[in-house]
Amino acid sequence: MEVVLIGAGNVATQWGTAFQEKGYSVMQVYSRTLDSAKALGEKLQVPYTQQIQDVVREADLYLFAVKDSALPEIVKVFPPVEGLAAHTSGSVPMDVFAGYFDRYGVIYPLQTFSKTRAVSFENIPIFIEANNRDDENQVEKMASTFSDQVIRLSSEKRRQLHLAAVFACNFTNYLYTVAARILEEHDLPFDVLIPLIRETAAKVEEMPPILAQTGPAVRNDKNMIDKHLEMLRDYPDRQELYRILSESIYKETIL
Amino acid sequence: MEVVLIGAGNVATQWGTAFQEKGYSVMQVYSRTLDSAKALGEKLQVPYTQQIQDVVREADLYLFAVKDSALPEIVKVFPPVEGLAAHTSGSVPMDVFAGYFDRYGVIYPLQTFSKTRAVSFENIPIFIEANNRDDENQVEKMASTFSDQVIRLSSEKRRQLHLAAVFACNFTNYLYTVAARILEEHDLPFDVLIPLIRETAAKVEEMPPILAQTGPAVRNDKNMIDKHLEMLRDYPDRQELYRILSESIYKETIL
Repeated sequence: MEVVLIGAGNVATQWGTAFQEKGYSVMQVYSRTLDSAKALGEKLQVPYTQQIQDVVREADLYLFAVKDSALPEIVKVFPPVEGLAAHTSGSVPMDVFAGYFDRYGVIYPLQTFSKTRAVSFENIPIFIEANNRDDENQVEKMASTFSDQVIRLSSEKRRQLHLAAVFACNFTNYLYTVAARILEEHDLPFDVLIPLIRETAAKVEEMPPILAQTGPAVRNDKNMIDKHLEMLRDYPDRQELYRILSESIYKETIL
Repeated sequence: MEVVLIGAGNVATQWGTAFQEKGYSVMQVYSRTLDSAKALGEKLQVPYTQQIQDVVREADLYLFAVKDSALPEIVKVFPPVEGLAAHTSGSVPMDVFAGYFDRYGVIYPLQTFSKTRAVSFENIPIFIEANNRDDENQVEKMASTFSDQVIRLSSEKRRQLHLAAVFACNFTNYLYTVAARILEEHDLPFDVLIPLIRETAAKVEEMPPILAQTGPAVRNDKNMIDKHLEMLRDYPDRQELYRILSESIYKETIL
């Protein structure tokens, strides 16, 4: 299978590397930013271009790994191809391709990608979709070379999954940041929290998070909650966050 | 070293088991609730009582593992003893013992305890404090039999650490619950989020959480944020939580 990568950021880089590791041929990298196209092209040792009209036409798969907001624009000006177009976004419906490609789908790995940290697709669920049965089978087969957990999912369910992931990953990481700030401000190292963070994450592999809930809010320990709010008096944003989270925990767990 | 356990809940149970594993002698369990005292006494195969006047007087250590709110009351009516009194709370100052005991301190393991899940103290930082140098050394030595990471910490810093832990553990777990609810409502299994939760937690072992931040808020992707808020329209609490977290992430990361 011959692949053209559309995009040259974190996600495109992870995919490009993964494709080559699994023996797929990456034919070309396209990015609107020449520097990015060049960097990824050189990393993968394949041709690159920033001219959309120079994209090779005979690939089997055009993998769109670009920002969600850029996707519709690039799709609109893409040259006509026979290959399958697929994007990797959690929140963009498959239909973004409709009218511009005959064959299209989605390959959405549920994971958080950072430039500086290698992530394998192996233990990551990949959610797929395609606009026809043959291509859905093909996408499923392809995704299965990367992951044991390949799941067919509609665009509507995928965007709900993506929203859930924003809570479980992006927002969770921000709470780690708030904790880090509090420690910093009192000359305490962040590292002491690592075992707690690890255990909190590990617990929900064994029990539903609602049953794993501990802390002052679930005990409705108003005395401690008030003390904490008082400790946060110079940080109104954190205070508000503390208040709404504690109220939500209490409401959710008494119902 | 001979220990009396004051309290018979999750935390007292973990400590009782740990003491016995390390060869300490648990002399007695005291709890105001007879059923709890009995359950833990029988589990550890040691005497138990719900009468505070029946607490044995000759122990080396009285470990108070009770609710924060119960601590001052129990301390006030405790019979006079020569042994060391220590509590295990993150947020109660050591001085809760002042005037009632001559020798006292704190042994605070930074971890989340649930009834149904065994937790070893081994890889958990334990924060200690005592009202005199000799006992501080003794508490440090004792804590070191349980953990490699024993850290002396003042009551003031300990309560800041505890507040940070509420964000990193209790509030984080609640975000897992919100994610679980969203998935539930769309017939998706919670399990698919596990690799993401695990990776989000693992990332901050390698980089500060502020640098690990991903998602729509840090990109200031207003289009996606608006779509998510719209998806949450029937859940005003979640919507408010989403809004304040996204605003905080944006503010924190542009500064």
